[in-house]
Amino acid sequence: MAMPAADAFIERLQNARDAARSLAGATTDAKNAALEAIAVGLERSAPSIVDANAQDLERGEQNEIGAGLLDRLRLDEPRVRALAGAVREIIALPDPVGQVVRGSTLANGIGISQVRVPFGVIGAIYEARPNVTIDIAALALKSGNGVVLRGGSAAEQTNAALVDVVQRAISSVGLDGGAVQTIDPFGREGAGRLMRARGYVDVLIPRGSAALISTVVTESTVPVIETGSGVVHVYVDETADDDMAVDIALNAKTHRPSVCNAAETLLVHRGAADRLLPRLTDALREADVSMYGDAATVERIAGIAPADEETWATEHLALEMGIRIVDSLDEALAHIDRYSTRHTEAIVTRDYASAERFLAEVDSAVVMVNASTRFTDGGEFGFGAEVGISTQKLHARGPMGLPELTSTKWLVRGAGQIR
Amino acid sequence: MAMPAADAFIERLQNARDAARSLAGATTDAKNAALEAIAVGLERSAPSIVDANAQDLERGEQNEIGAGLLDRLRLDEPRVRALAGAVREIIALPDPVGQVVRGSTLANGIGISQVRVPFGVIGAIYEARPNVTIDIAALALKSGNGVVLRGGSAAEQTNAALVDVVQRAISSVGLDGGAVQTIDPFGREGAGRLMRARGYVDVLIPRGSAALISTVVTESTVPVIETGSGVVHVYVDETADDDMAVDIALNAKTHRPSVCNAAETLLVHRGAADRLLPRLTDALREADVSMYGDAATVERIAGIAPADEETWATEHLALEMGIRIVDSLDEALAHIDRYSTRHTEAIVTRDYASAERFLAEVDSAVVMVNASTRFTDGGEFGFGAEVGISTQKLHARGPMGLPELTSTKWLVRGAGQIR
Repeated sequence: MAMPAADAFIERLQNARDAARSLAGATTDAKNAALEAIAVGLERSAPSIVDANAQDLERGEQNEIGAGLLDRLRLDEPRVRALAGAVREIIALPDPVGQVVRGSTLANGIGISQVRVPFGVIGAIYEARPNVTIDIAALALKSGNGVVLRGGSAAEQTNAALVDVVQRAISSVGLDGGAVQTIDPFGREGAGRLMRARGYVDVLIPRGSAALISTVVTESTVPVIETGSGVVHVYVDETADDDMAVDIALNAKTHRPSVCNAAETLLVHRGAADRLLPRLTDALREADVSMYGDAATVERIAGIAPADEETWATEHLALEMGIRIVDSLDEALAHIDRYSTRHTEAIVTRDYASAERFLAEVDSAVVMVNASTRFTDGGEFGFGAEVGISTQKLHARGPMGLPELTSTKWLVRGAGQIR
Repeated sequence: MAMPAADAFIERLQNARDAARSLAGATTDAKNAALEAIAVGLERSAPSIVDANAQDLERGEQNEIGAGLLDRLRLDEPRVRALAGAVREIIALPDPVGQVVRGSTLANGIGISQVRVPFGVIGAIYEARPNVTIDIAALALKSGNGVVLRGGSAAEQTNAALVDVVQRAISSVGLDGGAVQTIDPFGREGAGRLMRARGYVDVLIPRGSAALISTVVTESTVPVIETGSGVVHVYVDETADDDMAVDIALNAKTHRPSVCNAAETLLVHRGAADRLLPRLTDALREADVSMYGDAATVERIAGIAPADEETWATEHLALEMGIRIVDSLDEALAHIDRYSTRHTEAIVTRDYASAERFLAEVDSAVVMVNASTRFTDGGEFGFGAEVGISTQKLHARGPMGLPELTSTKWLVRGAGQIR
């Protein structure tokens, strides 16, 4: 596909901006009708979407992008129908726009109220996962935002077909289909321009690898919501219940190792090591987890490779785990402070004071006592939708729901008051 | 003063970071005791602070920095006592740290609660206003944050004296005085390094000129809360009450022209121009306001200079105002959309539909009906403290109180649940 002219890039941003203005005032009913039209459109257009996807897959195979990437890129008809189902779930969620957050009547009689409003235009940068295209588009639409999508050149044909379905569906119910734009045709240069599109884009959400997120965070002049990477710790305290410690460590590591809330490092209190380390490592080995241990762990347990500095800092996203014996809760807290990406950490303990100290002192988006780190999830938290998991402290921290895709404004109603 | 060695810069950031960790767990009582000690310290050290300030003033006069800047820089003993009074007002404010924002018990029995926690370390970049040094330090302390201050080389001696008082006061009650740091000795290079100090600084707040804010926003890799500049509009609708229109326009422009919530542009509906424009311009002229009008205004009213494109885009912060006659509410909304910095806009009207459309469609932090734009203020809104007025959409929008200086984290309490 030939690259469009440069001003075509700005035109797409401007279209999203113009559409966002009208979308901000759209009723929940109208937005839900658009979402239903998208779901129906996806089901009807499934064959042509799968055709477009086949072109991307063929190109991906030629370019040898790897089996994992190819699998994430692949859309068959059942997967397209699953996308339609995900869109219908978003219809059921409450609309955050117009919610009154707080308000009061001032002493001089002026009424002030803070209400939720859409950001305007959300930019999304992600990697070759067509499901994210539909996911973000639907969440943005429900929260009244326009969206500019940069989904990676490997999924360009698929994303173009999906965005075409979405735009037609939105227009079919009388809203502005321009609200959803893709800039895939503009390649890497387009991604770079999106990061500097102040005035067109109100917030940028990167989803994907740590490298992608780091690039967006450091190069963007548009405000960013940082999502994602998780070097997640499970700390087994001296007083941990034995079965609970094994269940939680195993679940946190192996339930779904490829996601950000999976555990990467197991810290075990020296006082629990004799009784628990053999059980923990046996269970992990049975689940095919490759383990890397500190010197004390390697000395105690046969067949564990020595860990190095990189072990502790790595988000494996695979059946691999670092294991370290610590002398105290303090040493566990210090290890976490040094290596955590501040996503999720859990302690397994029966001691009240240890639990409360861990909750108070670990500086992560989610801090847990006696639960699997896999519960850090918008769906599990009852938000109904997974916008992503913020690992920054500004605006949103932890699992993000629809309200996190809004800003607020103050409405002030007076009767002629002056100062 | 000789510039300290480069690693001394990182040392100050690290000191703030270490202190912030202990401050996060400090009780409200302990933080209030530190604030009282600061107030007492300022009163006792007033003579030496004034001496330090005299050195800055002398240098400022030699460098011919101008009368306005010199006045903002000047501290006499009454002004120092006023700073102590401002610190005592912050003691009276509720502590946001530890507030439970929301929470629930999940179907599986896990309890989740979202609580307010300090950001960690706040960076502040501002210009030669020693009162901001105390203001930000006290607000940061109350909200449990460390703070790194870059207050401008013109106020370096004054800021050093103030920070010394603050550090000693915090230490005197058993908290870590390193929580408040100045990087003034590191000059412009220090400001640049602060903007890239990811891992040391959690959020950066610029306060000052539009140019300063723009530099910080575009150059910073640390998340920024953008405050400030206001190209603020008052729109007099066709149906406006005559007296109210004059009162609000005059108050919005002249009550305190040097601040960001002062009006810069007056838009008047053509249908109200015959009856109101002479009264409005007479009142503004009597208040010594220089006016710049569009062609229609210049034609109607003698002695008004023609406006140009720059008039509409300028935050005058002085007794100057642009005046434009618009054909309709739509034209007023379009003008505001084009030139507003999205701080505050007000409509004066008796028409319900116009009022509601203005509230819904103006995309600014604060949108008003029949009230002076001067009410956009943390104190007026009942927040008790003025951290600044955010003109961005992420995290905080409009007047910011102490809660806006916090993040949140999720505390999860389980009984061994796994997925």
